Amino acid sequence: MASESEAQRALQYEQTLMYGRYTQDLGTFAKDEAARLRLQEGDTPRPRRPSELLEYSQGRCAPCRVCALQCQRFLISKVGEDWVFLILLGLVMALVSWAMDFAIATCLQAQKWMYGGLDTNVLLQYMAWVTYPTVLITFSAGFTQILAPQAVGSGIPEMKTILRGVVLKEYLTLKTFVAKVIGLTCALGSGMPLGKEGPFVHIASMCAALLSRFLSLFGGFYENEARNIEMLAAACAVGVGCCFAAPIGGVLFSIEVTSTFFAVRNYWRGFFAATFSAFIFRVLAVWNKDEETITALFKTRFRLDFPFDLQELPAFAVIGIASGFGGALFVYLNRKIVQFMRRQKTINRFLMKKRLLFPALVTLIISTLTFPPGFGQFMAGQLTQKDTLVTLFDNQTWAKQGINDEFEYLGILEAWRHPRSNVFVTLVVFILMKFWMSALATTIPVPCGAFMPVFVIGAAFGRLVGESMAAWFPDGIHTDSNIYRIVPGGYAVVGAAALSGAVTHTVSTAVIVFELTGQISHILPVMIAVILANAVAQSLQPSLYDSIIRIKKLPYLPELGWGHHEKYNVRVEDIMVRDIRYVTLNCKYRDLQQVLHSTKMKNLPLVESAESMILLGSIERAQVGALLSSQLSPQRRLMALRQKVLSEDGHRLSDSSIRFQISTETSSGTPARPALRKPLKPALKRVPSSPPDSPPAGSTDHTGIALKSLFCANAAEPTEAHATAYHKAKRVRISIVEEMILGDKMTPAEILEWEEQQLDQVVDFSSAKIDPAPFQLVEHTSLHKTHTIFSLLGLDHAFVTSIGRLVGMVSLKELRKAIEGSLTGKGVKVRPPLASFRDSTASATEADTTALRQLWDRHQHHHMPREAGPGGEDDDDTPKGE
Amino acid sequence: MASESEAQRALQYEQTLMYGRYTQDLGTFAKDEAARLRLQEGDTPRPRRPSELLEYSQGRCAPCRVCALQCQRFLISKVGEDWVFLILLGLVMALVSWAMDFAIATCLQAQKWMYGGLDTNVLLQYMAWVTYPTVLITFSAGFTQILAPQAVGSGIPEMKTILRGVVLKEYLTLKTFVAKVIGLTCALGSGMPLGKEGPFVHIASMCAALLSRFLSLFGGFYENEARNIEMLAAACAVGVGCCFAAPIGGVLFSIEVTSTFFAVRNYWRGFFAATFSAFIFRVLAVWNKDEETITALFKTRFRLDFPFDLQELPAFAVIGIASGFGGALFVYLNRKIVQFMRRQKTINRFLMKKRLLFPALVTLIISTLTFPPGFGQFMAGQLTQKDTLVTLFDNQTWAKQGINDEFEYLGILEAWRHPRSNVFVTLVVFILMKFWMSALATTIPVPCGAFMPVFVIGAAFGRLVGESMAAWFPDGIHTDSNIYRIVPGGYAVVGAAALSGAVTHTVSTAVIVFELTGQISHILPVMIAVILANAVAQSLQPSLYDSIIRIKKLPYLPELGWGHHEKYNVRVEDIMVRDIRYVTLNCKYRDLQQVLHSTKMKNLPLVESAESMILLGSIERAQVGALLSSQLSPQRRLMALRQKVLSEDGHRLSDSSIRFQISTETSSGTPARPALRKPLKPALKRVPSSPPDSPPAGSTDHTGIALKSLFCANAAEPTEAHATAYHKAKRVRISIVEEMILGDKMTPAEILEWEEQQLDQVVDFSSAKIDPAPFQLVEHTSLHKTHTIFSLLGLDHAFVTSIGRLVGMVSLKELRKAIEGSLTGKGVKVRPPLASFRDSTASATEADTTALRQLWDRHQHHHMPREAGPGGEDDDDTPKGE
Repeated sequence: MASESEAQRALQYEQTLMYGRYTQDLGTFAKDEAARLRLQEGDTPRPRRPSELLEYSQGRCAPCRVCALQCQRFLISKVGEDWVFLILLGLVMALVSWAMDFAIATCLQAQKWMYGGLDTNVLLQYMAWVTYPTVLITFSAGFTQILAPQAVGSGIPEMKTILRGVVLKEYLTLKTFVAKVIGLTCALGSGMPLGKEGPFVHIASMCAALLSRFLSLFGGFYENEARNIEMLAAACAVGVGCCFAAPIGGVLFSIEVTSTFFAVRNYWRGFFAATFSAFIFRVLAVWNKDEETITALFKTRFRLDFPFDLQELPAFAVIGIASGFGGALFVYLNRKIVQFMRRQKTINRFLMKKRLLFPALVTLIISTLTFPPGFGQFMAGQLTQKDTLVTLFDNQTWAKQGINDEFEYLGILEAWRHPRSNVFVTLVVFILMKFWMSALATTIPVPCGAFMPVFVIGAAFGRLVGESMAAWFPDGIHTDSNIYRIVPGGYAVVGAAALSGAVTHTVSTAVIVFELTGQISHILPVMIAVILANAVAQSLQPSLYDSIIRIKKLPYLPELGWGHHEKYNVRVEDIMVRDIRYVTLNCKYRDLQQVLHSTKMKNLPLVESAESMILLGSIERAQVGALLSSQLSPQRRLMALRQKVLSEDGHRLSDSSIRFQISTETSSGTPARPALRKPLKPALKRVPSSPPDSPPAGSTDHTGIALKSLFCANAAEPTEAHATAYHKAKRVRISIVEEMILGDKMTPAEILEWEEQQLDQVVDFSSAKIDPAPFQLVEHTSLHKTHTIFSLLGLDHAFVTSIGRLVGMVSLKELRKAIEGSLTGKGVKVRPPLASFRDSTASATEADTTALRQLWDRHQHHHMPREAGPGGEDDDDTPKGE
Repeated sequence: MASESEAQRALQYEQTLMYGRYTQDLGTFAKDEAARLRLQEGDTPRPRRPSELLEYSQGRCAPCRVCALQCQRFLISKVGEDWVFLILLGLVMALVSWAMDFAIATCLQAQKWMYGGLDTNVLLQYMAWVTYPTVLITFSAGFTQILAPQAVGSGIPEMKTILRGVVLKEYLTLKTFVAKVIGLTCALGSGMPLGKEGPFVHIASMCAALLSRFLSLFGGFYENEARNIEMLAAACAVGVGCCFAAPIGGVLFSIEVTSTFFAVRNYWRGFFAATFSAFIFRVLAVWNKDEETITALFKTRFRLDFPFDLQELPAFAVIGIASGFGGALFVYLNRKIVQFMRRQKTINRFLMKKRLLFPALVTLIISTLTFPPGFGQFMAGQLTQKDTLVTLFDNQTWAKQGINDEFEYLGILEAWRHPRSNVFVTLVVFILMKFWMSALATTIPVPCGAFMPVFVIGAAFGRLVGESMAAWFPDGIHTDSNIYRIVPGGYAVVGAAALSGAVTHTVSTAVIVFELTGQISHILPVMIAVILANAVAQSLQPSLYDSIIRIKKLPYLPELGWGHHEKYNVRVEDIMVRDIRYVTLNCKYRDLQQVLHSTKMKNLPLVESAESMILLGSIERAQVGALLSSQLSPQRRLMALRQKVLSEDGHRLSDSSIRFQISTETSSGTPARPALRKPLKPALKRVPSSPPDSPPAGSTDHTGIALKSLFCANAAEPTEAHATAYHKAKRVRISIVEEMILGDKMTPAEILEWEEQQLDQVVDFSSAKIDPAPFQLVEHTSLHKTHTIFSLLGLDHAFVTSIGRLVGMVSLKELRKAIEGSLTGKGVKVRPPLASFRDSTASATEADTTALRQLWDRHQHHHMPREAGPGGEDDDDTPKGE
């Protein structure tokens, strides 16, 4: 798929086998490093070794640093690395969260102050009200665009992809961290309907990655891919936890949003770090005298004795179902806006030219509409997001019998009252306007989340239902002696949980609202509403994050839907690619070349022979390229030439020794699996982007014509044009390769002849890295099981074997297609579901038996008479009922 | 080994590959069934097909049943199977929970009434107080023992094992369900310190299994192993959820307690079912007029404004740490009691003879000590568990400045006051006595859990700390204008969560207390205490459930400890068994015999040949046995004889056709993978217990001497004794095999000769079921990764391969040993951790290269000069730094 590979290149991700069976393990890496260090004695020291580092920084503070290092080591050995890491992470994130909240509050107050100060002139007021957020958003968009475009958006879709084992480059760097923190502060400070929770997941993950790198300076940490993934999972929990001061909800939300399979042993990490972070976050508020003691962020004071009546439950269920539809609509709207913006060529071209125009325009529209003396008066426009929530969760009933004059609005509640309208109209207008505004605002290219806006809309919707109920039953529903009035604030809580749950497809929003409000009395209504909202929303639309994953074309495996039982009946044989290229053990270099020409697969299967098809392992495309390039390298050619000139007798000996030397150089120049050597590093370091299919730059320079033709689009055979191009390139190369003893004295024709000759040699695989145990499936494996295995192990592809024989391959792409129902890809055998059932009885088992018998016959060469015919073949599986 | 396999047999479990790569899939099963049905037309109808069922029950109600079935189908097609199932499960479990609570309350009230009615005579009172629980417990123990011994104990350890993919027979049957429900009701009705939460997890799982079987009668359900596991996971959540009316806590607790890796897609199932169940459970209480509306079980009324002061946090931390030590001590004590009871031969023999004596004795001791007019007055003996919790979570402060006279105890609080002592003494005595009582009581062989007793002890401990704090700071710690007194009830909540968290190694007890008390205001203290308690307890002892798993020797993989980073450095090559038996493609039956003799492995690797060692698949031990038995079967022998007699020419033709027929019979008589064909069925059906190594009864009857010797303990060769035994058996058999045309006219010597001749034939694998893609690891895979893969995929064993070559095997046993640190098993190569690091650079890679080269050389037969020596061999991995 051209568009997909394009998107891949645009996003610069690369697939690692997270739980792959053969990775360049740390052990091997350490050995390599040790060998290299032994050879390179006295060369540049590696930055990771603190002792070596110290030799170079022998200034005044060296002794202090040694002392600090020793303290650090002592602490780590006593307390444990994970604890130190998690405490630091929690601390840093709490500080970041608190500081950001402080900055945002200051920004918002400044706007309010400006707006209040200019109350003499409405036009000036309007200018101030509109200009302030526009400037902030534009700055945020520009700053992010310049510093790190990866910081745009929520970050949860990317984290979901990273936690699946895909390395997204530049997504966990310091630069992105800075861009995201500053961009988010400005974006939220503008008062737009944006949230901080999604970006905080991303910020916490970056913080964890940076902290991990920082702590590894002290040498105490064992660098391990699995451990890094575990730490990132904990960081996601911290992100949500310190954003809402909701440790439990944070852990659960991050699990639901980022994971497919969750290791319970990581659970405590998330809990510990999130609790610590939430604790520090709230303690900071106490120290700052904002609060008297540690309490919830949006504390409610509903009565405990009789929180709700049993007969109110239908109303809560209605909120749940309506929120489900609303959530699906929100996701749909959000996606449509993005797609519309992409599709409209003219608008797009204009906006692309002036990248900051779109954010500014959107901000202008939204802030104009919320201008309090204007339309904003009908939708409580002057309230900030936080104030809105506080008022919506308020304990009082705003409308009594529909006559809102009876009720005295105090303080910020004033905003909801309008002299010429009633509170219902205000709420309806608020919900409708905020709905599209939020869907639009979250498409602005600034760091922003959608959780909080949706949460507020949900709260408003819940309040609307609650106020209606209160107006309908002014004395409550309960008919006993005590009068328990209806609490519309409780409905607001339920609505907030339901709508945010519907948009994100999570149940844990229920826990988040309990922690946010500090009350759990409405647990059953909230749970019922959230579950209903999820049931409705999940059957209509993907979650917001999955929707963004699809829009951004991130390499992610979609979930199997609820109760899609037909998935159990699709088998691997129905979806696998049967026509795959392979490398045989006794193939020639020419075969390698042809394979590279004919396929784009990143991993090629290595089989014993074309007849037996026994799968021995898999070899990376880059490795095959390296093998070819080393075989056809100019050095080797020159060496061959020299050997020919100097002595005819010693030819064979030198040839082989030279080849070994060259292949050594190739493997040092080609980091075969950079992502696997130092797991988190590629995401932390700036790597020059090169298309993954091309061989590394170092080796292409030295390769010959035949190899070069591989990487040219339509060249099957080296042509004259190539030879000319080769000559040009050669002239440049000669000047580079000055240390060569003999100049390149072969003519192009000779080179071609030599290369043709080289291509006819049998491949020497001894210098290639072969994955000796690629993941194998059998034809009968169900789609459901395949999906489970792929998501569990973070696989990218798997070979399908039948008693050792390679019969096909399944990659993420086929699986994705099979799940999404569009089985019409090229090379994919399309079979309707249940096809396997409809087949005649013996087909599958017969195939197995035949294959086995072939192998068996081939090996023993015994003559076994088989005149019993095909009836005997399915005997082994279909008993005849004796 | 010996003891383990003994334990295995005792528990009758069998391993299934939960996510195994090749199982007898439902598709194949369906095909087999279709074929069988086609052949057996008119035979006994299968009970699953409702249409067939109806043909036989053509009574009056047949039309109604058809109608009901159609309704059912319509409902299922519209609403979805999972929903129907989960709603039914939730409903049934809520009813069971409520009914059980009602029965338990009645039992306890009866005891109280008896005790109250006899207040004229202390001796009579004592008799009533003691006899009542003794009778109940003895009945419970006896009933459980007779009906289903599997119902004894908590059930969580078994569920943990079942969810890992091991089939524990008889654990999910109706009989066990009945035994558990009735036994548990009696046990809890006795007033002993026992809990209902562990057994409820088991009851819910049984309920799910039975419901699944019941609903499959209507044909709407797709029977699938993966689905069953998902449903069981949801059932565990329902169990906890409807026991405490705590849906969120229930889901989380069940995840923490039963899973290692959790599929997030199962999350909603648990939430939905648990919420529905908790809802119905509480609605029943409202309908029964116990409650006015739906509220928490142990509702607290702590103040919301200022739940606790920041300076109280150290006290909460102290509760956490002390609870950690207490929890570890509880687990230790519980284990020691069990081990002591097992070890004491004399006591044991006596108790074994009179199985009910031990429960009666323990009950007698405990109830004597709690007798209210006796020692019970110092430990609030007359309070039931529920009353105790209600009083401990009370809002008031019991001790003011240590002078408890000032305070008026009302109602049931009265129990905590003692005229000659103060409340601190009562609490201390209560904690100490209940601690050992609970540890002892949970070892009684009745259905019982330990969660609730521990929860109560924790609450008492928290209350003690809280009362001490209240006595120490009578006006609270806060020094501002408002006086906020310390709330000892809050400390009780924290203590309860911390101690139960420490014993079970879970964090979700925090959520459970919030849901139980209906207040979340103490979230931070609870979280801090629970995390500290977990940290302490997990570093000292396994969890109670893991401890029971070890005592019962269930096949479970231990967790990797926190931060055991050395585990990252152990590799598979350090722990794998290198000396394994294998089956080659071209082997003879004699080789099969030898392999079966020499190993006890349940799965044998099938390799291409002894030289190449290319792994082709794995074959089950039972299959190998079946192959041998069919080769040596008397039928085959008789046929051969008949062929010989009738015609010499047509020998070969008939021989092969007969062999096929026989192998068919064998495979129909031998359900090769019964557990995999119908996943949940073996656990639901009573299967005759037979040692797993022996071939099925149907085929042993027909086998010859050589095969028989396989399954006799010390027989390597068929002897005279065997021949005699054979003759005896034969005489019986001849009378059975009456339909045979020719009698068995061969002498034992002839038979032996014939069998020897048969054993020299090359094995025909075409009738054997071969797993074509067994799980493979490579030597470099780290222990950490291996553990992850084993727990993710629920593996039992994995083969270690190197470029297709089989080099070793790792099974659960080796892995368990490696994790537990005792690497001294036989056949296991013991290497200290980090050994791989200390090796010289090239060892591993060289091995790879050599193996590959061997293969390569073998295949191409090209002469490649390799005079460069061994230096050239590690070139491929260790760059020389050019």
